[in-house]
Amino acid sequence: MLIRGNLVHCPELGQLDILRDFVLAVDESGRVSYVAPANRPESQQMLADAAEPPLVIEQGSFLIPTFCDLHLHAPQFLYQGTGLHLPLMEWLDEYAFKAEEGLDNDPVLADKVYKRLATRLIENGTGAVLLFGTIKTETNLILARVMQEAGIRGFVGKLSMDISSRPSYMEESAEASLSEARSFSERCCDLVAHLPDHERLVHPVLTPRFVPTCSDELLEGLGQLSAQADLRIQSHMSEAHDELEWVQRERGSHDIDIFAKHGLLTPRTVQAHCTFLDPPLLTQVAEYETAIAHCPLSNAYFSAKPFRLREALQLGVKVGLGTDIAGGYDVDVLSCMRHAVAISRMREGERIVATAGTSAEQETNLSIDWKEALYLATRGGAIALGLPSGTGSFSVGSPFDAQCIRLFDARTGEGVGALDFFDDLSERQVLSVDSIEKWWCLGDTRNRQQVWVQGKMIKFGC
Amino acid sequence: MLIRGNLVHCPELGQLDILRDFVLAVDESGRVSYVAPANRPESQQMLADAAEPPLVIEQGSFLIPTFCDLHLHAPQFLYQGTGLHLPLMEWLDEYAFKAEEGLDNDPVLADKVYKRLATRLIENGTGAVLLFGTIKTETNLILARVMQEAGIRGFVGKLSMDISSRPSYMEESAEASLSEARSFSERCCDLVAHLPDHERLVHPVLTPRFVPTCSDELLEGLGQLSAQADLRIQSHMSEAHDELEWVQRERGSHDIDIFAKHGLLTPRTVQAHCTFLDPPLLTQVAEYETAIAHCPLSNAYFSAKPFRLREALQLGVKVGLGTDIAGGYDVDVLSCMRHAVAISRMREGERIVATAGTSAEQETNLSIDWKEALYLATRGGAIALGLPSGTGSFSVGSPFDAQCIRLFDARTGEGVGALDFFDDLSERQVLSVDSIEKWWCLGDTRNRQQVWVQGKMIKFGC
Repeated sequence: MLIRGNLVHCPELGQLDILRDFVLAVDESGRVSYVAPANRPESQQMLADAAEPPLVIEQGSFLIPTFCDLHLHAPQFLYQGTGLHLPLMEWLDEYAFKAEEGLDNDPVLADKVYKRLATRLIENGTGAVLLFGTIKTETNLILARVMQEAGIRGFVGKLSMDISSRPSYMEESAEASLSEARSFSERCCDLVAHLPDHERLVHPVLTPRFVPTCSDELLEGLGQLSAQADLRIQSHMSEAHDELEWVQRERGSHDIDIFAKHGLLTPRTVQAHCTFLDPPLLTQVAEYETAIAHCPLSNAYFSAKPFRLREALQLGVKVGLGTDIAGGYDVDVLSCMRHAVAISRMREGERIVATAGTSAEQETNLSIDWKEALYLATRGGAIALGLPSGTGSFSVGSPFDAQCIRLFDARTGEGVGALDFFDDLSERQVLSVDSIEKWWCLGDTRNRQQVWVQGKMIKFGC
Repeated sequence: MLIRGNLVHCPELGQLDILRDFVLAVDESGRVSYVAPANRPESQQMLADAAEPPLVIEQGSFLIPTFCDLHLHAPQFLYQGTGLHLPLMEWLDEYAFKAEEGLDNDPVLADKVYKRLATRLIENGTGAVLLFGTIKTETNLILARVMQEAGIRGFVGKLSMDISSRPSYMEESAEASLSEARSFSERCCDLVAHLPDHERLVHPVLTPRFVPTCSDELLEGLGQLSAQADLRIQSHMSEAHDELEWVQRERGSHDIDIFAKHGLLTPRTVQAHCTFLDPPLLTQVAEYETAIAHCPLSNAYFSAKPFRLREALQLGVKVGLGTDIAGGYDVDVLSCMRHAVAISRMREGERIVATAGTSAEQETNLSIDWKEALYLATRGGAIALGLPSGTGSFSVGSPFDAQCIRLFDARTGEGVGALDFFDDLSERQVLSVDSIEKWWCLGDTRNRQQVWVQGKMIKFGC
């Protein structure tokens, strides 16, 4: 496949590259094999030699990498956008556990909910997603199959939990839980074993729900299993005030120490939230090369503290964004980016007010801007997930995971969706940072024209 | 007009009434003349006697009052969603003043921008809006005409500013500024003088931009003009760190004292932001019966502090919501509500962490929930604007300002827009709080089927 048009990506934090009128080639295995300005002789030659006409991204549109969602509870999509009035631990009892148990008892419903979720993810430009599932292996295999069939990179976590406030919703012992985790991991890999490597989109992830639901024995076993089988790990860490209190009371420790002790902080780990980690603890996370899924909306609702995003980035922690459905109510990573920026600006505001007139006034700015948020949603997320080299940017060798964003109709000049432009169409034909920022602020599913994962188109809209 | 269906409103803060299967009648002047359960004999009689078949709001849809947007810079819609990286005072210089001057110099562009804005407001369910315009009288008359023709309650503020950091964008003297303010007010009223009272949707608002752009003489004159001609007033108060520093440095005072001294804090006044007001100052605002436009998104970007929303409400301040286009980038009041709740929950989180283990731990909860946000966006906003008695709720005598929200297709059960439902259609036929909350969290323009202002339909979509 040969594509010609504008490309936009953030290869590094804070860097937004607008690659105007580029040629990009995708090979048989869905990887980028060439990317360079169209006016280069080599590009011209490729265009001239192409067996099929290239896909031309029209003026008014551009390609950017798909989004990575680093934290999403698939079964909670069932009740997305409801019941957000309770503190975390009560909310889990009242809503989350009940919904998850419901899907584990009803595979038809699970299939329906997961298919709808997949549709919504594609609509919203999410190409890779790290999923929390349910306890039951079969239900997680449904989830894996649905994601594979939808063409989304699905990292599927069968929940491991041998302790629960809801006695009907837990595994019967650490041993039984470990055995199921092992079994799910094997069966999830089996699902795609017949496919060539590059078409294997789903992968199992070891998923101790969080410390309050896992015995030390279970955590220890999962740590060993991850090391033996080279499996990814995800969990929640230091999320909420009531959760931290619980862990301190019941286990006499901080959950970062518990995870560390059991070998669960690894370069293959993504921990959601981490809102209560101070810089020394974030330094530990960086040293373990563990990634953090920053979930700004659900943090605002459930965490009592905003995540120290700027500090984490400065300390070298791998960070990406998570929607945290249904603790966050919106599956849209674009919305997640907006929350991340707004909350970071509030943190910076607080810092400014607190340090006004002191020598610290001009120190580190704690806010991030929209370009940095876009990095986190694309390249940052891909790094956190350990996706193949270059994923989340347009570079030779990286998988072609991309979305086509339509800003305006190149013929009429009319903005698409919620976007309005009042300048002359002729001025707008050269894609500007301002236009991209406008999309970042105001865009929605209506601006998303196509989505590709590993070179394969998984959505074609209007 | 006779309507039968589900109505939802928030007549008081914290109260969400679901009026299932009601009959509502609208009289010739666009006011609600009857509202009662459909199963009452009187309602049945009205349905039987109706000359025309009633409008039946189908299961899966409901009516709620239109939103009030208490703070929006109409000319800044020109560059909505761009350039949000600067501090407030630099942002004004770099973007706002330039855009406003641009529209004042180009009536064709002003007409175009304002028409597009009106379309967007209706799409987003905004029935009443308090607008900041530009300096030039003629441009504000265009704005007023556009709003009147679109059928939106437009409270139009011709900017008064005799000081400016941009020398080309200011009025030449306090006297000239006052004379123009007077002239605009008269001409704006003249625009609709030929219409019956209930069809007059636009009104002039005296609009000292903010203290940094207004001399004491101008402020004094505007205070007198408001008192003489019973005119509404709007401005910005105590918004941002750099603005407050400026006022303190240049005027040696706090802007609330400056406004008060010149008679600009009145029951007819709406002040935007007020983020830096502490409870004693909020008490003063309550005593003046001045309303506050809470603009959560732009506060996150520009104010360095979140507004003390819960405290303001407890102290009896009239509060509504403002999108603050383009300091806020989203014209959607639904989005504004979401920000208001998220930010209030962050404030509450901070309070919890700060007071943990102390006697203050259980004191006032600073967060608001979605129902309270819905009150602020409807009834709260209507009270702040001084709209006719009952506006923002469905009550006899109030203007019929309503929007029809479609949650799902009553025949297929499919959710509309971003809404997904997985329960049985039969269970869902009785409108639940959960369904409304789901819309509040996830709804967008696709869920908005119709909008009426003063009984007149101003949008009919799919």
